[in-house]
Amino acid sequence: MEPKKKLINSADSCVDEALCGLVRASGGLSLLKGHRVVLRSDPDNLRGKVALLSGGGSGHEPAHGGYVGAGMLSAAVAGGVFASPPPASVLAAILSLHSAGASGVLLIVKNYTGDRLNFGLAAEQARNHGVAVDMVIVAEDCAFDQPSKAGRRGLCGTIFIHKLAGALAEEGCSLDQIVSKVTEVLKGIGTLGVSLSPCSVPGCLPSFELPPGDMELGLGIHGEAGIKRSKVASADEVVKTMMDHMTNPDSQSHLQGPVEQGSSRCCVECDWQVSTVTESRGVVVARVMSGSFMTSLEMAGVSLTLMRADQETLRLFDAKTSAPAWPNLSSQCVSGRGYITDPQAVSTRPQDDAPVMRKALEKVCSTLLEKQEELNSLDRAGGDGDCGNTHAQAARAVQEWLQDHVVPGCPGRLLSVLAGLVQEKMGGSSGALYSLFLTAAAGHVTEGRSNAAAWASAVHAGTQAMRRYGGADPGDRTMVRVVVVDAAASGAESTRNLTARAGRASYVAAERVTLPDPGAVAVAAILRAVLESLEGKK
Amino acid sequence: MEPKKKLINSADSCVDEALCGLVRASGGLSLLKGHRVVLRSDPDNLRGKVALLSGGGSGHEPAHGGYVGAGMLSAAVAGGVFASPPPASVLAAILSLHSAGASGVLLIVKNYTGDRLNFGLAAEQARNHGVAVDMVIVAEDCAFDQPSKAGRRGLCGTIFIHKLAGALAEEGCSLDQIVSKVTEVLKGIGTLGVSLSPCSVPGCLPSFELPPGDMELGLGIHGEAGIKRSKVASADEVVKTMMDHMTNPDSQSHLQGPVEQGSSRCCVECDWQVSTVTESRGVVVARVMSGSFMTSLEMAGVSLTLMRADQETLRLFDAKTSAPAWPNLSSQCVSGRGYITDPQAVSTRPQDDAPVMRKALEKVCSTLLEKQEELNSLDRAGGDGDCGNTHAQAARAVQEWLQDHVVPGCPGRLLSVLAGLVQEKMGGSSGALYSLFLTAAAGHVTEGRSNAAAWASAVHAGTQAMRRYGGADPGDRTMVRVVVVDAAASGAESTRNLTARAGRASYVAAERVTLPDPGAVAVAAILRAVLESLEGKK
Repeated sequence: MEPKKKLINSADSCVDEALCGLVRASGGLSLLKGHRVVLRSDPDNLRGKVALLSGGGSGHEPAHGGYVGAGMLSAAVAGGVFASPPPASVLAAILSLHSAGASGVLLIVKNYTGDRLNFGLAAEQARNHGVAVDMVIVAEDCAFDQPSKAGRRGLCGTIFIHKLAGALAEEGCSLDQIVSKVTEVLKGIGTLGVSLSPCSVPGCLPSFELPPGDMELGLGIHGEAGIKRSKVASADEVVKTMMDHMTNPDSQSHLQGPVEQGSSRCCVECDWQVSTVTESRGVVVARVMSGSFMTSLEMAGVSLTLMRADQETLRLFDAKTSAPAWPNLSSQCVSGRGYITDPQAVSTRPQDDAPVMRKALEKVCSTLLEKQEELNSLDRAGGDGDCGNTHAQAARAVQEWLQDHVVPGCPGRLLSVLAGLVQEKMGGSSGALYSLFLTAAAGHVTEGRSNAAAWASAVHAGTQAMRRYGGADPGDRTMVRVVVVDAAASGAESTRNLTARAGRASYVAAERVTLPDPGAVAVAAILRAVLESLEGKK
Repeated sequence: MEPKKKLINSADSCVDEALCGLVRASGGLSLLKGHRVVLRSDPDNLRGKVALLSGGGSGHEPAHGGYVGAGMLSAAVAGGVFASPPPASVLAAILSLHSAGASGVLLIVKNYTGDRLNFGLAAEQARNHGVAVDMVIVAEDCAFDQPSKAGRRGLCGTIFIHKLAGALAEEGCSLDQIVSKVTEVLKGIGTLGVSLSPCSVPGCLPSFELPPGDMELGLGIHGEAGIKRSKVASADEVVKTMMDHMTNPDSQSHLQGPVEQGSSRCCVECDWQVSTVTESRGVVVARVMSGSFMTSLEMAGVSLTLMRADQETLRLFDAKTSAPAWPNLSSQCVSGRGYITDPQAVSTRPQDDAPVMRKALEKVCSTLLEKQEELNSLDRAGGDGDCGNTHAQAARAVQEWLQDHVVPGCPGRLLSVLAGLVQEKMGGSSGALYSLFLTAAAGHVTEGRSNAAAWASAVHAGTQAMRRYGGADPGDRTMVRVVVVDAAASGAESTRNLTARAGRASYVAAERVTLPDPGAVAVAAILRAVLESLEGKK
């Protein structure tokens, strides 16, 4: 017996830790001493208004404690994990709200036998204490085709009732007015869940088995198995299956009220998920909430709640609340809004071909292709042996580009083009580093300014960019060092000296290790090819 | 090769579905055509202000797209799952913001080589297009004891930077001012993660193995294994371990700046968890955020981020934002706030003992104890055979109570007391139903009004409550039926007739089934005992 008791205690302490954490973290909440009851910490603001109380078993966080705040619940009572709260705590919560000056207390209860009985009992006890109490039962589950004795379950749609009733109470509506509005709204709410995994009450085995790749439709929020099992599909397909089931008039629990063209709906989804839901049926989707609102321990899955909404409902839905679990929602209508922005076109001008540049590039490409095996072999000593291949890939990409493009006369523009090619075709860190160098250098050499000093400052800018974005310790990246060593010494010298020194830099590296670094060799080879091409032209 | 490709595509399509869902669901967001870029849909409001761009690999939802909105990011670029976004998309985002009239663009980048390179490259390209761009690197991971070449990772603390920089940008601060403030704040931010499960990139195996009951400290947000493994402990102990590690001055990556008495901190936790964190060290906890802010696919776990906060930082932290993933926070200081409310005492008055009532109760108890085996045996036919035990348990509880309590003369008060006893000691649905009946009945019989008519209306109220809270179809609950059948016929008749009819009701039930229902037999026995006791007194 002992181990079992211990496990139950551990599940119990989770509940208390979670409640305490929620309340301590939220400026507007407090705990009722001796009970698992979360209360608004500003009871004075309840005076003369209807107070709202909800709750139920724990394991559905952030429900219900997270929905306590101005404009939503006045208090929430928590039971153990998946267990209805004791009537004594429900009563204590009601009496607290009453003594704060609330004109009446509305209990919002999900349709489970335990919750109905325990909240009902507390309601009767409270009436004997002279409190005006009423109760609404939320039963919006759309899972079951056939009527069941216990009726439809209360699921995530409950938080819509918290929100709408909360807004009405904040406005000063009477208990009867709130019950009447909420009862009307409840007719147009439906929820359906899909799970990708079971859940386990702390200390217990998983509630059901679900093989990887399977999903289960129509499950509850207490680990109850669902009504139908199928293969996991894309988000769109899953939502379509859910919608079909929810609106099937042959199902006893199908969504009441019209889901036809022009009707307006709010949706709530219990997980971060795709929201292209109902518009294809001609329904106007007014608002979408997406997140974790009524969870089931660690169960992976999603539930979809739809609510018919007129302008008055939307006004209440959009009203301000301080409840910590209510999300930061836009009050813009979701349907009919354009949500694709066109990117800015990057302008290009037609130009003449620059033969000197073309020749230099051709030389670089042929050199890299010749050195492919040499670079691979150097790389096999300390890397994955593909340094030659990577460079050859870039060289072939440049060769292809040269075949059907004009080489721009502005060196800066050429460097930008090369940066793009290298980034796209070479890939990996090498591609990014070359591309960084070329891009940063590009801005420093233009058609009107491409003398030695300009090239030196271009190389300096390139190496700075590699230092800056290349990682915390660029000194360790040989490609960067080759260029950095060179640039540091180059000052305002000519590109000719520059390339010579870069060549030496690769030998410096070679003196310090048994074999030269293949990246350094490649950079040296590129610079030498440019140099030789320029010298050949003179 | 084909299956691998397919899996990659499926991971890719998740990313696009998630982005599309986020943007369609949020009134204030739009997508940049041809790119995985989420933009504010109100670009006009960026004119003359600094625009903020962040992003990185996907799989960390709601980061970063959920933080786009007025007062936070202007745009977010997403890569594939755990893959850095392509520079072309980063550039497209920057150019979009620039052309909307932004005075400059600040890139907020987490410290990963790929992100540094790709955002850096786009920054250089944007500069070549004449855009004023700057970049801050977030590297606040406190996991590693020893310095690593790649530096500290960027984790959940990034969203603090989104928030503070966003508030500054909204106020019209310059690029330099924002970079300067944010650079200062970054020195006082630290994050540490704990995982309870690995995560799996869609289509791939889990990133590491973690036996049930183990947890791993110091993990990253890409499924990287952590630095230390231990047994799962209570939330308080885990937080203490995390705090010890984060503030250990021997660790290279320990939290910079004072965590001493009186310093003020904001905390962010990546999962719904206990938040009794730092106060025991004398630190003033100014704000706590708790929820899913920077996740790692389906990994179960929590990360704790601490940020040193002065009044200016808190002002920026509390500033309004429309970003959908920013939570509904209170701006009240967490530390020093009282968060325990005392419950209302339920008043009791001293009274004289009521001998008639006492005698009737004694008779009921002895009857139920005599019938224990009979009720059990009836229950074995269709139930779990403990109906007699349950009733005997209640009877013994009432006997014990009678020994040291005064029986109130007001029948209503007595019924309330009995309701409490039955609820507490009998338990289960039977306890709740009896309790409901007694509680609802209690209000109708008082010291001054306890004639036959009053008792009849009490019974009526009791049965109504059982109908109302007992479930959707109370006709199926035999206990309810016994009383309901009776009450419907009783009208304003005496309690004597009432008990007789209740007795008959149990026979009605007996005619319809082979054996009488044990609950019905119990109710009949109780009513008969009361009757006999009253008759004996006459």
